[in-house]
Amino acid sequence: MLKGFTAPRSPWGIAALVPSPPWHFAGDVLAVEFWNDPDVSVHLLPAGVELDERCRGRSVALFTDYQFTAQNDEHLDPARYQCRGFSVLLDALWRGSRIAWCPYCYVDNDAALMRGWIQGYPRKFGTVHLSRAFVASSTASAPLVHDGRFSACMSAHGRLLVQARITLRERAERLAGFLDRRIVGRRYFPRLSAGMHDKPAVDELVRSVPHHPLVTDIWTGEADLHFPEAYGEELEMLGPLKVGRGYRFSFSYSVTDIEVLADLTA
Amino acid sequence: MLKGFTAPRSPWGIAALVPSPPWHFAGDVLAVEFWNDPDVSVHLLPAGVELDERCRGRSVALFTDYQFTAQNDEHLDPARYQCRGFSVLLDALWRGSRIAWCPYCYVDNDAALMRGWIQGYPRKFGTVHLSRAFVASSTASAPLVHDGRFSACMSAHGRLLVQARITLRERAERLAGFLDRRIVGRRYFPRLSAGMHDKPAVDELVRSVPHHPLVTDIWTGEADLHFPEAYGEELEMLGPLKVGRGYRFSFSYSVTDIEVLADLTA
Amino acid sequence: MLKGFTAPRSPWGIAALVPSPPWHFAGDVLAVEFWNDPDVSVHLLPAGVELDERCRGRSVALFTDYQFTAQNDEHLDPARYQCRGFSVLLDALWRGSRIAWCPYCYVDNDAALMRGWIQGYPRKFGTVHLSRAFVASSTASAPLVHDGRFSACMSAHGRLLVQARITLRERAERLAGFLDRRIVGRRYFPRLSAGMHDKPAVDELVRSVPHHPLVTDIWTGEADLHFPEAYGEELEMLGPLKVGRGYRFSFSYSVTDIEVLADLTA
Amino acid sequence: MLKGFTAPRSPWGIAALVPSPPWHFAGDVLAVEFWNDPDVSVHLLPAGVELDERCRGRSVALFTDYQFTAQNDEHLDPARYQCRGFSVLLDALWRGSRIAWCPYCYVDNDAALMRGWIQGYPRKFGTVHLSRAFVASSTASAPLVHDGRFSACMSAHGRLLVQARITLRERAERLAGFLDRRIVGRRYFPRLSAGMHDKPAVDELVRSVPHHPLVTDIWTGEADLHFPEAYGEELEMLGPLKVGRGYRFSFSYSVTDIEVLADLTA
Repeated sequence: MLKGFTAPRSPWGIAALVPSPPWHFAGDVLAVEFWNDPDVSVHLLPAGVELDERCRGRSVALFTDYQFTAQNDEHLDPARYQCRGFSVLLDALWRGSRIAWCPYCYVDNDAALMRGWIQGYPRKFGTVHLSRAFVASSTASAPLVHDGRFSACMSAHGRLLVQARITLRERAERLAGFLDRRIVGRRYFPRLSAGMHDKPAVDELVRSVPHHPLVTDIWTGEADLHFPEAYGEELEMLGPLKVGRGYRFSFSYSVTDIEVLADLTA
Repeated sequence: MLKGFTAPRSPWGIAALVPSPPWHFAGDVLAVEFWNDPDVSVHLLPAGVELDERCRGRSVALFTDYQFTAQNDEHLDPARYQCRGFSVLLDALWRGSRIAWCPYCYVDNDAALMRGWIQGYPRKFGTVHLSRAFVASSTASAPLVHDGRFSACMSAHGRLLVQARITLRERAERLAGFLDRRIVGRRYFPRLSAGMHDKPAVDELVRSVPHHPLVTDIWTGEADLHFPEAYGEELEMLGPLKVGRGYRFSFSYSVTDIEVLADLTA
Repeated sequence: MLKGFTAPRSPWGIAALVPSPPWHFAGDVLAVEFWNDPDVSVHLLPAGVELDERCRGRSVALFTDYQFTAQNDEHLDPARYQCRGFSVLLDALWRGSRIAWCPYCYVDNDAALMRGWIQGYPRKFGTVHLSRAFVASSTASAPLVHDGRFSACMSAHGRLLVQARITLRERAERLAGFLDRRIVGRRYFPRLSAGMHDKPAVDELVRSVPHHPLVTDIWTGEADLHFPEAYGEELEMLGPLKVGRGYRFSFSYSVTDIEVLADLTA
Repeated sequence: MLKGFTAPRSPWGIAALVPSPPWHFAGDVLAVEFWNDPDVSVHLLPAGVELDERCRGRSVALFTDYQFTAQNDEHLDPARYQCRGFSVLLDALWRGSRIAWCPYCYVDNDAALMRGWIQGYPRKFGTVHLSRAFVASSTASAPLVHDGRFSACMSAHGRLLVQARITLRERAERLAGFLDRRIVGRRYFPRLSAGMHDKPAVDELVRSVPHHPLVTDIWTGEADLHFPEAYGEELEMLGPLKVGRGYRFSFSYSVTDIEVLADLTA
């Protein structure tokens, strides 16, 4: 019997690119609130998803630096399961309920790439760097203090796609009104059979179901954000019209489930 | 309207990880024929695929170094579309017809990783190196001559998974009885909804349909092959009992189609 | 006038691979005390350096994960100046004074590679991973607690060279008797002129001069350590005869100086 | 006795980052002739080197894709010794003799980085990609034919630094008047001792001494060339005022020597 949550399925189930859920994540985040041009970003939405009229064009640029584990101490194999990623999230609505739509997502690890496709995040490879906050005092630490400065950037195939700077101003108890929407993505797996290239085998709108979400050590401040133009990408079309608050926090959550909102193949 | 053969689907269809077929490939190959233990490799086969009794345990270790293009001059974006890969192919049968079953496959590029999953190849990330045959005469070239020596290796996440050496002995007109089977793989895309983790959304046996396959500049010779043991992999279970001929050749082919042999979700 | 502490020297001095000192470092460490065979490691010492007879064969395997800055906010360019490294340090003596001799050193960044050569550390490229201790509670965090588990590994060119595991047992106030020696290395820069290949232009024994060294958040525990054999390396000759304590701590220090102990070209 | 042409010097001399000369190189090149602003590029020259007044501002952008070996079959260890690089060369004079001055140089391999510093090339890490010319006919090959198109690019730390396109027009027997100057670079190794940061231990102007240089399969054509602006680099100051011919050829040569033109520490 072949085993494994994903290919390659194998006799022991060890070789699978992605281990079986539940999946657990813990890490640090740099995030920047921004506004894009809603006349542009409206064209990034699939059928059934609308911009949130109360905050048209409001979006989040999210840089994550995290460790992953499933049931077999994967976090003790850091070469395989540490990960850094970048996502864009747009304030949107699904049948009247507030959601965050994820049009673009990048990650630096193959297991995370495929995990993303299974969760409905349209991941491609990107190299992501975030300033680290080290404990020992030094000019080289980026301490969590008033006026502490942090940077983040993401490149794909040698082209810089996004760059952010945050200057911390104050500690916060919670992410009031920020990142408080469940993420909606699209599970999409095409067919290759002749004549079927535009009839995907899987095309579902799905909503994330985070378990035990935890956010801590929250700081907010001022931010800069840029999406340099790059051949072969469309991220720059979301180039900020306005940049809002920047955030730095730590997080953890688990995933064992996803909610299918709609089957778009029907 | 969102466009793109795969996610991320976008307004212009430029951002998609994999461009629409037809896909064209041209490159160089190092390949080694070997025999594994059929009592082991039989456990790598999905329902409906059997070992080929006429050549039980006969397999190929295949290293490829190639350029890809679709319809938009992708080959002129080498940072994104050059690629190196490694595959294992087992001599097998599908309803009596000779096929090559692909249990493991590695590639060094995100577009190729996803293209593989769409084609039924169970790709993970691997870093692949092959000796290059350069035209200008030098101790550093690996010329295509009698006694010419070539190496190939593949590592994933910093662990060496396979290593091969070939010493060329003679030029050949064709790959007689070698790599003459169409490849069968498994398109597999899991569900994440609770209770459905073992009920994949897509689970199909598929057979490759190469268009315009071309093989040229063929050399054969002697070979060594090793699969070092590595945590988190099962490749070493195919560790050669016997190693046969080594091959070095150049190839091209195109892909626009795939043949679905069976729907295993039924 | 061309400017820059190192090549490439340029009109503005921005292009130099390594910025001018002072250099500041802040990061996290996983370290394992071990004993090698002193009859082997004695052959790793340059003239003038002896094994420390009071602790023959005692050594440290040191994994570092750190941020660097000089005078121009380099730490806000994380893609260029974050760094992970691995070093071996042998308990030794220089004219009777206790030192740590550094025979091998690896790092994952070009600026750090060259900075190392300037400091006398014989750096090569290596890909280093360490378990990260994240603040938010999760199975995926590696918390600094009793029984907390950490891993570290280093690979070069796709071959695993060292692997370590530490299980934390107790918090400590200081690194009593551990990493308390100044590091001695060898600045070595060869000549390429014909007939001079064995007459280096620079060959100096140098002792590190750390400024403002700070060590904090110290935990100690049990450890495992392995040096797998790898083609093109000699690290495995130091393969542990015995493994001692493991350590996890945070650190910072600065560098503006080095002490030249001996000019070996004389 | 410790052995090795460079650090780390070790009992067997296997661990050294760079093996002893002679060094042999074989590979492919894409090169573009261009003119920079001589009022800018004159500030890139060290004392004693002048712009060539007969061709002020004439330069070459050189992309190389090659295999290296020394005396121990290094070319059969492709993971360690294959290499891609990018250099800029300026037409210049040294005491009246025609030379090519190398102000900037990038390479994707640690051994090549250090070999470059020893040869006087101011190398930093860069990721380089060149279109490959594969033998098997395909839309994906980049054949050496009239109207054949080739691309090359180089990025460092996720930022695109140079991009080139060449369309082949005709085969040539020789590189008439192109790349016919010996390269002059600067061996530069700083001191770290306090007060000596601007008194390098090594500061020599050196001229390359290629042995058995061979150039073959030469094609010339039209070219485009861009140096995008990038933080932390000064390459864009050489941004082409005019672009000349593009070249594609194969090459090999060996190195065992270097000519020291001047000791700038004196």
